[in-house]
Amino acid sequence: MKIVAIAGGVGGAKLVDGLAQLLIPGDLTIIVNTADDFEHLGLYICPDVDTVCYTLAGLANPETGWGRLGETFQALENIRNLGGPDWFHLGDKDLATHLERTRRLQAGQLLSQVTRNFCQAWGVRHTVLPMSDQLVRTMVATDDFGELAFQEYFVHLNCKPKVNGFRFEGVDAARPAPGVLEAMQNADAIVFCPSNPWVSIDPILAIKGLRPAIALKTVVAVSPIIGGQTIKGPAAKMFTELGIQPSAVAVARHYGDLLSGYVLDIIDADLASEITIPCYITQTLMKNRDDRRHLAQDVLNFIQTLHSREN
Amino acid sequence: MKIVAIAGGVGGAKLVDGLAQLLIPGDLTIIVNTADDFEHLGLYICPDVDTVCYTLAGLANPETGWGRLGETFQALENIRNLGGPDWFHLGDKDLATHLERTRRLQAGQLLSQVTRNFCQAWGVRHTVLPMSDQLVRTMVATDDFGELAFQEYFVHLNCKPKVNGFRFEGVDAARPAPGVLEAMQNADAIVFCPSNPWVSIDPILAIKGLRPAIALKTVVAVSPIIGGQTIKGPAAKMFTELGIQPSAVAVARHYGDLLSGYVLDIIDADLASEITIPCYITQTLMKNRDDRRHLAQDVLNFIQTLHSREN
Repeated sequence: MKIVAIAGGVGGAKLVDGLAQLLIPGDLTIIVNTADDFEHLGLYICPDVDTVCYTLAGLANPETGWGRLGETFQALENIRNLGGPDWFHLGDKDLATHLERTRRLQAGQLLSQVTRNFCQAWGVRHTVLPMSDQLVRTMVATDDFGELAFQEYFVHLNCKPKVNGFRFEGVDAARPAPGVLEAMQNADAIVFCPSNPWVSIDPILAIKGLRPAIALKTVVAVSPIIGGQTIKGPAAKMFTELGIQPSAVAVARHYGDLLSGYVLDIIDADLASEITIPCYITQTLMKNRDDRRHLAQDVLNFIQTLHSREN
Repeated sequence: MKIVAIAGGVGGAKLVDGLAQLLIPGDLTIIVNTADDFEHLGLYICPDVDTVCYTLAGLANPETGWGRLGETFQALENIRNLGGPDWFHLGDKDLATHLERTRRLQAGQLLSQVTRNFCQAWGVRHTVLPMSDQLVRTMVATDDFGELAFQEYFVHLNCKPKVNGFRFEGVDAARPAPGVLEAMQNADAIVFCPSNPWVSIDPILAIKGLRPAIALKTVVAVSPIIGGQTIKGPAAKMFTELGIQPSAVAVARHYGDLLSGYVLDIIDADLASEITIPCYITQTLMKNRDDRRHLAQDVLNFIQTLHSREN
C-alpha cells in the first residue's frame, strides 16, 4: 500500500516514524509543511522538515521531539554573551544543517534538492518532500500584536498572543515541490498526521493543486487533539481563540469533506457519534517508538477497511 | 606612553597581549588587518580581528594561537557529514562570533562598531580597531592557480601555491576606521607587531592616509622572521618566492624608511650590522604570556631609548 503522509513537526514526525517502521521506502512519501520556515541570523531554517528528517534518521532528541540527540549549545551561549538573539534554540549540530542548507540555497539549489541530498547523507530512506520550493510564510493575526511571523508568535512570544486568523504569505505563487503531485497520484491513501490543522496542515492544503489532488483519494486524519487538549503546541488554544470548542470533533469538521475516515483517541470515544464519517478509536498518544508503530498499524488497517468497504 | 600596535593574527596578537599586560587601556590602541576577512557559509569572518580579541580576552586557544579555548566542532563535523565545505575550521563558539557579526553588519552596523561591542562583551579593555570599515581583500597572485582569495590560498590550499605578488582589492575606496587616525596622531610610537609584512601589515599601510600618518611617528618593528624562518605562516616562503632571501634584514628593508628602530632575535644578532637604523637584540620567540610581556617591555624600553636620542 502506497501512502502519502502530510505532516508538520513534532506530532506529525512521530506518526511518520511509525509509518516508516512498517512501509518500505518506495511506499511512503512524506510531504512536510514549510510555512514555518524562516530566516534567523542569516540562516534559512526549516523546523518541520528538519524535525521529520531528524526523527526518521534517528538523530532527533527523544526528550523534546525536536532538535538533535546529544546536542550542544556552545554557539547559542556565545551569541547570548554577545547580546545577540537567543530566543530560537539553535544547537551546534542543528546549525550545520542551517548553514549548509543556506549555502546551497544561495548557490541556487532548490529546497527539495537540498532536502533529498540531506536525507541521503543522514540515511533517511523514505522520501521527504517539502510542500513547495517557493517560500510560503504563515502569518498569525493576533488581537494585541497585529500580524506576527509564525516563529515570532510560536517561539519568541511562546504562543501567548490571542489569535484571530492566519494568512499564508506567498502561497498563491507557490507550486507543489517536484514529486508532490506524483506521489499523491500514486498513493492508495493520504494520511493527515496529528499535526496542527491551522498552521501545519492548512498551509499544505493551500498550495495550488493539492486540495483537488487530495480530494480524489482515501484520506484518513489522526486527531491532534486528545481530550480537548494537544500534546504539544497551540492547536487547542487556537481553536478556542477562534471561537470553536477544541476537540477531536472540531478537527474533523475543520477538514470537512476531504476526510474518508478519522482516527481518534479512546478518551474521545463518545465523540465518534458526532462525526459523520467512519471513525477508528484507538490509543493515539505516542510515548515511544512502539506506540508510533502501533498507531501507524492502526491507521493502515483502518485504510484497508475503508478500501474494502469502497469496493 | 601611548602606543599604537599594528597587527595581523597569531604572531601579532602575542605581542599585543604583552603590550596589554604593561599598558593601561587608554594607552594602547591596536589596529588590525582586515584584508584576510572573507565570507564563508554566508558568514562574515574576520580571522585577525578575532584572534587579537580572543587573545586579549583570554578566550584564545593557547595551543593553536587562533580559535577558542575549550572549543568544540559539532557544527563543522555535521557540515562535513552533509558534504559541505569543511576546510575552514569553524568551532562552535567561534561560529557565534561570525553569526552575530554577520547579523549586525547586515542590519547596517559598521565593523568597527561591532568590534567595539564584542570587545565590551568579552571584557577586552584595550581598544581594538579594524583597519577599515570598508571591505579590502588580499588577493594572492600565484604561478599555477592565478589570483586566489587569501583564505583560499592560506587555509584551503595550505599556502602551497607559489606566490608572485599581492593585490589589495578595494583598498582605494577604503578609509581608515573611525579612531585609527586619531590614535596614530596621539601615539608616542607605533609598533609593527611580528606579523606577515606582505599580507598582514602591508594592507594596513595601503589604506589611504595611514602611511603618511605613520611616517610622522617613531616606528619600531619586531621581526617576524627568526633565523630565516617564521614561527607560523608563510612570510619566509613568500620572500623566497618573490626572489628575496628571507631574513630579519629583508623585513627591515621591506618597511624601509618608515622604521625608526628594529627589534630582532638574538639568533640574528650578527644581522644587525646590515641594518642602518638602531636595532634592539633580544629574545623574540614568545612561548608563553611571560615571554610576551618581556618582549613588549623590551619594545617599550627601546622606544624610550629612541625618544631620548631624538631629544
